[in-house]
Amino acid sequence: MKIGIVGLGLIGGSLGFDLRAAGHEVLGVSRQTATCEQAIALGAVDRASAEFELLSAAEAIFLCTPLGVMPQTAEALVPYLSPAAILTDVGSVKASVVETLEPLWHRFVGGHPMAGKETAGIAAAQAGLFANRPYVLTPTARTDSEAKATLEHLIRALQSNYYECSPAQHDRAVAWISHLPVMASASLIAACQQEPEATTLALAQALASSGFRDTSRVGGGNPALGRMMAQYNREELLRSLQIYRQSIDRCILLIEQHRWDDLERHLTETHQARPQFADKA
Amino acid sequence: MKIGIVGLGLIGGSLGFDLRAAGHEVLGVSRQTATCEQAIALGAVDRASAEFELLSAAEAIFLCTPLGVMPQTAEALVPYLSPAAILTDVGSVKASVVETLEPLWHRFVGGHPMAGKETAGIAAAQAGLFANRPYVLTPTARTDSEAKATLEHLIRALQSNYYECSPAQHDRAVAWISHLPVMASASLIAACQQEPEATTLALAQALASSGFRDTSRVGGGNPALGRMMAQYNREELLRSLQIYRQSIDRCILLIEQHRWDDLERHLTETHQARPQFADKA
Repeated sequence: MKIGIVGLGLIGGSLGFDLRAAGHEVLGVSRQTATCEQAIALGAVDRASAEFELLSAAEAIFLCTPLGVMPQTAEALVPYLSPAAILTDVGSVKASVVETLEPLWHRFVGGHPMAGKETAGIAAAQAGLFANRPYVLTPTARTDSEAKATLEHLIRALQSNYYECSPAQHDRAVAWISHLPVMASASLIAACQQEPEATTLALAQALASSGFRDTSRVGGGNPALGRMMAQYNREELLRSLQIYRQSIDRCILLIEQHRWDDLERHLTETHQARPQFADKA
Repeated sequence: MKIGIVGLGLIGGSLGFDLRAAGHEVLGVSRQTATCEQAIALGAVDRASAEFELLSAAEAIFLCTPLGVMPQTAEALVPYLSPAAILTDVGSVKASVVETLEPLWHRFVGGHPMAGKETAGIAAAQAGLFANRPYVLTPTARTDSEAKATLEHLIRALQSNYYECSPAQHDRAVAWISHLPVMASASLIAACQQEPEATTLALAQALASSGFRDTSRVGGGNPALGRMMAQYNREELLRSLQIYRQSIDRCILLIEQHRWDDLERHLTETHQARPQFADKA
């Protein structure tokens, strides 16, 4: 197939590597000419351009820009698409994206490849990024089933673990396992920094080790990404944060009331529940 | 020196390996005869016994039992100690331990080697466990300075990073970086499990990856250990939990009020603060 990729960053570039390896012709679009040249040089795309015209014969297009510019990018793109072209996106939040993009194109299917790295940009792109990682499509009642089937086929060829759910269910699930952890983890760092005694804060910082490191990792990540998650998945994130707050309150209550057996039972439940959360990374 | 170790588990056994390697004679006491035999066979101690009498000539004794049995173990032990013997413990909470043990022995110094593993018991003991890890002594106004100096010398020979602070300051610091993370992390797992829709919970579990794994790790740990932390460091943990709760509330407020610039600024602060927490693990 002829496959278009709009936005040649970590995700777009990595898709390019794998789709080319699978025998497809990959056409990349980036606003930056330097990025286009780099993507060609790295072998992430066959051809690249700053103009959407390059995609006029593409049969499937992956929209790989940041969430914030997806609507205007899609609007600018659709006049160039051939009538049967399939359009999908890779945004980490789905309800708002699908709501905006679905009316723009009759063969649109929302998607979310759940792969990432600490580093961004075309230079970080790599083959095999999506292998053994979840890739979720979020069809609706309006979704063209043939378009979805074609995408599913492309995604399974990436060796991804394929999932399908509604945009709303996707957003609720990722609020739990991706967006809430960022806020809980950031709040941990923020709370520690509230320690009023400078020598105690310095001691805490010196004594911190693997437990603190792991718990604080996602809270010390990319601030712009954290903001975006909250902005685009606001309602589901708020809902999970409220339930999390109740969970913290419960913990405080048990400790305040010296209910040590109840606390141990509670920690036994979390100990037993954790392995149910897939751990394929 | 002749060094005694009471409690031959992960910490006691690992101390034995390193102290023997440093040329000391290591005498181990465990209630379990099988553990004594295993410690000798592994080379963690020179001699071992279920009786405290073995330690009558020991010059320094490390109390390595669980926190809960330290007071009664120390009380039973002191009648056997030679007058100049130095007594220290390895408990992960210090104020309550020091308060109880200090009156029992004039040459007692509280301590906390901050090293651990997922596994427990003499079979998990290993040489070098304390190298490049913090080891805190918590002297008070009553502490014998010569006893403290001797222990400092032994600890530095373990290649540990040596720290000294008051028991109260220790407990406040570890509440921030060790005990609060356990409760924040456990509350994350507990909150996710509150999801009422079974299919959404199953999807969340399937989609969870490294971010969730890291943030939930210490909350999925040993329930008895978590209970012990809370029980013995109750006040400092409650204080840190209250501040953490305010930190979560602030996060909720910013998101509720669509204050995206403030949220990004907040996440930028946590991003910048995290590297100040030592990461030598």
